[in-house]
Amino acid sequence: MSQRVVIIGAVAAGPKAGCRIKRLDPSAQVTMLDRDAFISYGGCGIPFYVSGDVADLKGLMSTSFHMVRDAAFFKGAKGIEVLARTEAYEIDRAAKMVRARNLESGEDLALPYDKLVIATGSSPVIPPIPGADLAGVYPVANLHHARAIKDLVAQGQVGSAAIIGAGATGLEMAEALADLWGVEAHLLEMAPQVLPGALDPDMAAMLATHLRRQEGVNLRLGARVQAILGHESGDEAGKVRAVRVDGEEIAVDLVILATGVRPNSELAMKAGLALTVKGAIAVDETLRTSDPDIFAGGDCVAVRNILTGQPVYIPSGSLANREGRVIGTNVCGGDARFAGAVGSFCIKLFGLSAARTGLNAEEALVRGMDVVAPLVVQADRAHFHPDQKLMYVKLVAERASRKILGLAALGENGDAVVGRVNAVAGLLPLGADLEAVSNLELCYSPPLGAAVDVLNAAANTCENLIAGKLRPISPQEFSRRLAAREQGDTVFVDVRAIDNAAPYLAALAPQWLHLPGETLSQRIGEVPRDKQVVLVCNSGVRSYEAQCLLDAAGITNTVNLSGGVAAAKKWGEPIIPPED
Amino acid sequence: MSQRVVIIGAVAAGPKAGCRIKRLDPSAQVTMLDRDAFISYGGCGIPFYVSGDVADLKGLMSTSFHMVRDAAFFKGAKGIEVLARTEAYEIDRAAKMVRARNLESGEDLALPYDKLVIATGSSPVIPPIPGADLAGVYPVANLHHARAIKDLVAQGQVGSAAIIGAGATGLEMAEALADLWGVEAHLLEMAPQVLPGALDPDMAAMLATHLRRQEGVNLRLGARVQAILGHESGDEAGKVRAVRVDGEEIAVDLVILATGVRPNSELAMKAGLALTVKGAIAVDETLRTSDPDIFAGGDCVAVRNILTGQPVYIPSGSLANREGRVIGTNVCGGDARFAGAVGSFCIKLFGLSAARTGLNAEEALVRGMDVVAPLVVQADRAHFHPDQKLMYVKLVAERASRKILGLAALGENGDAVVGRVNAVAGLLPLGADLEAVSNLELCYSPPLGAAVDVLNAAANTCENLIAGKLRPISPQEFSRRLAAREQGDTVFVDVRAIDNAAPYLAALAPQWLHLPGETLSQRIGEVPRDKQVVLVCNSGVRSYEAQCLLDAAGITNTVNLSGGVAAAKKWGEPIIPPED
Repeated sequence: MSQRVVIIGAVAAGPKAGCRIKRLDPSAQVTMLDRDAFISYGGCGIPFYVSGDVADLKGLMSTSFHMVRDAAFFKGAKGIEVLARTEAYEIDRAAKMVRARNLESGEDLALPYDKLVIATGSSPVIPPIPGADLAGVYPVANLHHARAIKDLVAQGQVGSAAIIGAGATGLEMAEALADLWGVEAHLLEMAPQVLPGALDPDMAAMLATHLRRQEGVNLRLGARVQAILGHESGDEAGKVRAVRVDGEEIAVDLVILATGVRPNSELAMKAGLALTVKGAIAVDETLRTSDPDIFAGGDCVAVRNILTGQPVYIPSGSLANREGRVIGTNVCGGDARFAGAVGSFCIKLFGLSAARTGLNAEEALVRGMDVVAPLVVQADRAHFHPDQKLMYVKLVAERASRKILGLAALGENGDAVVGRVNAVAGLLPLGADLEAVSNLELCYSPPLGAAVDVLNAAANTCENLIAGKLRPISPQEFSRRLAAREQGDTVFVDVRAIDNAAPYLAALAPQWLHLPGETLSQRIGEVPRDKQVVLVCNSGVRSYEAQCLLDAAGITNTVNLSGGVAAAKKWGEPIIPPED
Repeated sequence: MSQRVVIIGAVAAGPKAGCRIKRLDPSAQVTMLDRDAFISYGGCGIPFYVSGDVADLKGLMSTSFHMVRDAAFFKGAKGIEVLARTEAYEIDRAAKMVRARNLESGEDLALPYDKLVIATGSSPVIPPIPGADLAGVYPVANLHHARAIKDLVAQGQVGSAAIIGAGATGLEMAEALADLWGVEAHLLEMAPQVLPGALDPDMAAMLATHLRRQEGVNLRLGARVQAILGHESGDEAGKVRAVRVDGEEIAVDLVILATGVRPNSELAMKAGLALTVKGAIAVDETLRTSDPDIFAGGDCVAVRNILTGQPVYIPSGSLANREGRVIGTNVCGGDARFAGAVGSFCIKLFGLSAARTGLNAEEALVRGMDVVAPLVVQADRAHFHPDQKLMYVKLVAERASRKILGLAALGENGDAVVGRVNAVAGLLPLGADLEAVSNLELCYSPPLGAAVDVLNAAANTCENLIAGKLRPISPQEFSRRLAAREQGDTVFVDVRAIDNAAPYLAALAPQWLHLPGETLSQRIGEVPRDKQVVLVCNSGVRSYEAQCLLDAAGITNTVNLSGGVAAAKKWGEPIIPPED
């Protein structure tokens, strides 16, 4: 007899599991239900629909070749029965039965299963702010929100908007509104940085600097949103008119809540299935729940963080899809494994892209790990090629084991940034060490890569740091010392050519000295010995060489500026003078 | 006492080793000699200098921040003594002495060493063609050639050029001449494909199709160049006027020899050092030659192919640089290892990029390995994002062990193509299997990646192929069957929407049938049983689903078109009708 499979949830993990099941076992009877009318869509595409990059909601619901993935499509092309607008309200594990209700007709359904797949996804966290229920306040969780927001902006009803939360969704929505619709976007983040938890503060600061330079984006970090205020009378009564932030009122026509999501695990919990971190459903490597006939995947589950071994909640359409396939295989009697996640993430904002995988430095430090994570700056392809852009990377490695723990990168060529992070993502589950990255054989041709890639250089810098040959300071520390330069305990020694150094000398002497690298060995006597010396070059390479040379001469009161002036500029250092 | 290090060769591996030595051991006395006056340049940049992308030869000889790396730079900034225009003619291993001659003054030098580094590079192979010594015939091996060629084209003296050899250099030179200078470029390749040895014939054919569509490029494969002909009298006597190819004369003003390079290993051979494949110097993992005090790196050595364990000769500026660093570490008493190479390679031509790493399918088959290597076609980011382009990939995996052996990729977003290949390059030395790529956690955001990346899909397709669930045919085989369709033993079943299928039906019926995927389960009776059925869709995904469905119904006389119509078009299939 053919097996009966019920799938609860029809957005990403659900459809993927269902299609895989039908390919492996065409005789299986697969029924997939969803409380929404919209199914099988790319939720991550919502900001791009709002911006207009994706013209039509159908774009988010179609296959690569423009077939709309609706119930008829799943029936005809995949042999899957879809029950839309149907909400499962109980899993009866003893009877192996899902009880559901058609939200249109009110009709009750009992769906027997041999195997059950829970793919109920996530819901937006609505922050406990007064006024969060006003008209004109939207989370960004589904296509209904997407359509409502886009309709408002397209009708010209939004001059100004508040976006609460500067995670990925908040940032992308800010760009969609400000860049493409000319909306004044007030991006309000409670944490002291954008993308908290996703990027280290220094990388986040570079992104924030970039955002602040964009027209129409008003970024406030450490912002406490106290209330969302509505019109109290007149035609617009009940509609949002302002937000109150740190005592100040900002007039807005729209509020976007981008304050994260939580797993939809109530149904699983009521059925007695084990939950774990953040209330997500616990699954093993086969993606079975605590009931071996019930699988779960997507935004409703937590998976193992491959680097820490701990469960981690990462809502992501990409994980959901890969989990769906593993579930499909295992529902059909296979033995596929989902080892967990390394936390790969990327974002593109106003032409600048950031990406990360594994642990960032802060996450490693919080866990008490002893790591090195130098900031390395280098061209993303041959430095003489006209398409080259600087890339800013932080490779995180454990000091004692030399094991690679993660990489973050930032730069203007988004595919190049992501390419470097992806090259490390695959190495993490295999326990690769610094030597693997130092010798990583990336493709080389001047328009597409560098003879010594920034990744190779980053691994080499980690090695030098572990060997004690490099004493870097961060752009932030550089800024602090620069601001305090009048106190006289630090001098800055610029080892670049005079063209680069001249504006700095003009602005910052006598605390800024110029000893070009190629003359340093002859002019060692001019290096101050009674102060801390910060060695400065463009990217951190020549200042490192200067440090080696001075160390050999017994002059060890030096540190070097990690990533050089390039990194300090990217970080938004306000004191350094313009060169061009 | 400080150690004396002599380095022969000052282009890539040599300077890298020298700089590393001075950073690790500032007291070392490092002397670097080169027979050329040009040192420390990016030879891979020559085609981009000829094209004008790099305006000035100095661009190829400078650091990222515009310092020219000449003898004074190495002396002042690095503490390295450079002897340019100085040719080493003997290594006296017993006396630990290099004998050399200043090519300007004729002066003889004896340079004692504690450690010697051989980085003598490679020389162009001059093919044994009559007339190869005429004026106007150039290899592309150094900056003298680069300058001579660019001067000729910039002075408007070249209306037509022959490029002999369609390897990377020949292809890049063809683009430089045709695209940017409007020169009629005759690209003549003896092999039946471009990039022989670097790409499989099918990927090479896609690139060749693209090249043939470019104005000013005349590609001839399987071309036998019989002679280069010169003017016999008049002002131009002794200058090239034509090439004779397969009996035909083509008038040209310039001939570029791009027929590969051979290692400069004569000096090492004369000193009794062991040589290996292609006459390259043999080195161990520490990059020592058969004499433990003599290291060698760069284009003059062979390294271990990590996948086959055999020595392989890969001249590459990127390997040279990484080898230089390992040599530097080991000269200073360290124990760095260079495990070998996986053969990563990339090229960008007229907006199309190709890259590969590891073994391609043909290389694996020649070695008697049983592999799967399906062609998989998918968007390089979210298919609904406006920047998306199709990417064509071939992941090569060993059938029994499921070990990943290599990847080739092709597409218009060069950084995205190279990013995928780099993500696999690092996995190869670690022995990763298909599951590692199936679950590879690439960064996902609609502008930068896909929820299920083409790499994940490629690994899944390999799994399906090994499981016997997929019976693909290549675009070439599709073309052969299409050309022979009148013979009546094959029918083509198009499972796409009618918009896609209509022009094919009009042109190719009755051998072309239309059974859209979503109706196939109801119309199984219409699938012919007495003929071979080729299932066709846009990218190969829906035809695979159709195959599964038909298999389950007991209809197994089907194959599916790998990569779908997209791949057939890219391959240059002439019969299929236009859709747009």
